[in-house]
Amino acid sequence: MALIVQKYGGTSVGSPERIRNVARRVARFHANGDQVVVVVSAMSGETNRLIALAREVAAVPSPRELDTIVSTGEQVTIGLLCMALHDLGLEAKSYTGAQVRILTDSAFTKARILHIDDAPIREDLNVGRIVVVAGFQGVDRFGNITTLGRGGSDTTGVALAAALKADECQIYTDVDGVYTTDPRIVPEARKLDRITFEEMLELASQGSKVLQIRSVEFAGKYKVKLRVLSSFEEGGEGTLVTVEETNKMEQPVISGIAFNRDEAKITVRGVPDRPGTAYQILGPIAEANIDVDMIIQNLGHDGQANVSFTLPRNDCDRAMEVLEGVREHIGAQSLHSDKNIAKVSVVGVGMRSHPGVAAMMFRTLSEEGINILMISTSEIKISVAIEERHLEQAVKRLHHAFELERAK
Amino acid sequence: MALIVQKYGGTSVGSPERIRNVARRVARFHANGDQVVVVVSAMSGETNRLIALAREVAAVPSPRELDTIVSTGEQVTIGLLCMALHDLGLEAKSYTGAQVRILTDSAFTKARILHIDDAPIREDLNVGRIVVVAGFQGVDRFGNITTLGRGGSDTTGVALAAALKADECQIYTDVDGVYTTDPRIVPEARKLDRITFEEMLELASQGSKVLQIRSVEFAGKYKVKLRVLSSFEEGGEGTLVTVEETNKMEQPVISGIAFNRDEAKITVRGVPDRPGTAYQILGPIAEANIDVDMIIQNLGHDGQANVSFTLPRNDCDRAMEVLEGVREHIGAQSLHSDKNIAKVSVVGVGMRSHPGVAAMMFRTLSEEGINILMISTSEIKISVAIEERHLEQAVKRLHHAFELERAK
Repeated sequence: MALIVQKYGGTSVGSPERIRNVARRVARFHANGDQVVVVVSAMSGETNRLIALAREVAAVPSPRELDTIVSTGEQVTIGLLCMALHDLGLEAKSYTGAQVRILTDSAFTKARILHIDDAPIREDLNVGRIVVVAGFQGVDRFGNITTLGRGGSDTTGVALAAALKADECQIYTDVDGVYTTDPRIVPEARKLDRITFEEMLELASQGSKVLQIRSVEFAGKYKVKLRVLSSFEEGGEGTLVTVEETNKMEQPVISGIAFNRDEAKITVRGVPDRPGTAYQILGPIAEANIDVDMIIQNLGHDGQANVSFTLPRNDCDRAMEVLEGVREHIGAQSLHSDKNIAKVSVVGVGMRSHPGVAAMMFRTLSEEGINILMISTSEIKISVAIEERHLEQAVKRLHHAFELERAK
Repeated sequence: MALIVQKYGGTSVGSPERIRNVARRVARFHANGDQVVVVVSAMSGETNRLIALAREVAAVPSPRELDTIVSTGEQVTIGLLCMALHDLGLEAKSYTGAQVRILTDSAFTKARILHIDDAPIREDLNVGRIVVVAGFQGVDRFGNITTLGRGGSDTTGVALAAALKADECQIYTDVDGVYTTDPRIVPEARKLDRITFEEMLELASQGSKVLQIRSVEFAGKYKVKLRVLSSFEEGGEGTLVTVEETNKMEQPVISGIAFNRDEAKITVRGVPDRPGTAYQILGPIAEANIDVDMIIQNLGHDGQANVSFTLPRNDCDRAMEVLEGVREHIGAQSLHSDKNIAKVSVVGVGMRSHPGVAAMMFRTLSEEGINILMISTSEIKISVAIEERHLEQAVKRLHHAFELERAK
């Protein structure tokens, strides 16, 4: 007998029929003797419908009122899922965020969980009830309804698992686990049985959008055993996200290859090569709330330098405007932007003990004639910026070079 | 400066544009120096959509979970109306039933209000905020979400007005007040400036569905000044529903004529004329949850009696089945039903001091050759059952006979 928290996303509860499917799955765990807490999102499309309705009334909706409105999406799902469970002859009880009491701060639309009162849920579980909790929402100490931001239902699931000291937090999505890379690009991509939180974070932030980053951080911090599974397939084991690295002897060097197409590069040419230049360029960009990723500074001729950085493609035009405004003040000769940039990263805790990863990566790309525009590294990740037209080729070749298609 | 509670029904908040209209009206009262608490229903169609969704998941939805789901309709409206008020530069704050704390019993889908905590609302009003409260919903002492039953938003409005000792509770609907009778039948029907709670109750229960009966009872009990107004017209005074009767000297004898088309009549012929017969017939009908309205018992020949009663037309077939089942036991000779029955009532507190009303009513119908099938009376109302085909004629003639088209 185990205590399991299961989280189902909007697609998994997107219709009455799918809600009944979720109920049947929950019922099987319950029949197995497990105690089950289910966290659900709003039915797919519902959150967008509510936001659109709010925008029809006011161009800039009040965050407090937006949370009051948007949180109704999950409130409807919890009621429906309980009804479906009752229909199977099971006892089930729904909880809104306020009813559990998932206490958050008052940062409407992006609140942080401060405390979860687990006593009422435990009482229900102890008498054999299935507990269904609205994801994505909480309540602040003044009784205002808050939401955790998009994808926050993952965070609710992990936070509940932590509060209840659950044996496992299962995240059901429309994929059956975490892959070595996107199978749409590399058909031989292999589902990973296990992955560490650090790797998951790097893969998630590099564009493998299986789990919300915040929920993974949360799970790592509170040592919650996290499993990613498909809600549309039966019997799969999914991918287990754990704190412990697997047996070092069998540890593959690289776990996966992540990529992001939507990058751009801006180069500021001919700036004076003196301390503070990078700050003068990147300060105004940060103030405009634009996230810069990789940065390089090259010494040019005549004591002048070039500064290049990558950023989300959507922000490129705005960043160029910002820089035009400060160009003279900086003393830069010219500005150049390139919107056809992609980023490829190899990720793996194994590279800590295997120094040859960067060399292998660079050699592989070189053999393919792919020019590396920029490089950035962390302890468990090496990222390169390349021209977007080479992206698929790079991912395929790297996947093969690191033998990711072979089970370890 | 007055404290006003305004209630807007589903049609009045049925679209973003209509919600903005409501906001503009509220803003005018606020600009006038009034403190305003607004109670809103779900946008028209929303409650039915949610109930249909629930029925798609489970044939017999759990009442607790149904309330959790259905209450989201009003929760969305309060957020939207606050946004519209913010857009006009006003401070406004939304409250769900649980946030106000409208404490109810635990009778899901038909809960009764036990207590309202008025302190938080008063605080908001005192700093110039407009308060927007979700109608139709409350919370029980265990924190479960409850609803007050269909039309319960009127009750929320009146209960809040009572708790806040508001100067007036304004119910905005799609009609501009209470009329002497339905203007679709009698074009000369006149809007009443005032009406007493007792009259309103009689008119409401007789088919003039302007206000929910329970809210009128509540208003009468707590002496809340109630006003029915149109949400689509400006500047009207509507109809004031008050405890006090107006100046007796000017009191019209009759305030209005109510009617109901959907009646049926059942007659049980040839039952033994002995004590208990009426009970033997009506007991099983009551057990089947069928409301009987008028009842007469006539002595027939040979010590046998006939018992007739009226009931809602929809229940007629079911009532006949029930009676077939007990006919032999009762010793009745035959059962007859007539589904083409209508009821007409003249209502007015003035008839307490004017004994000629019944005579005038019967004479008028007699002159028209309309046969009276049954009669029932209360202190302020006389009702007759007639054949449905005479209904419009009866209402028109009575309206004219009591001179209701003339302002008093």
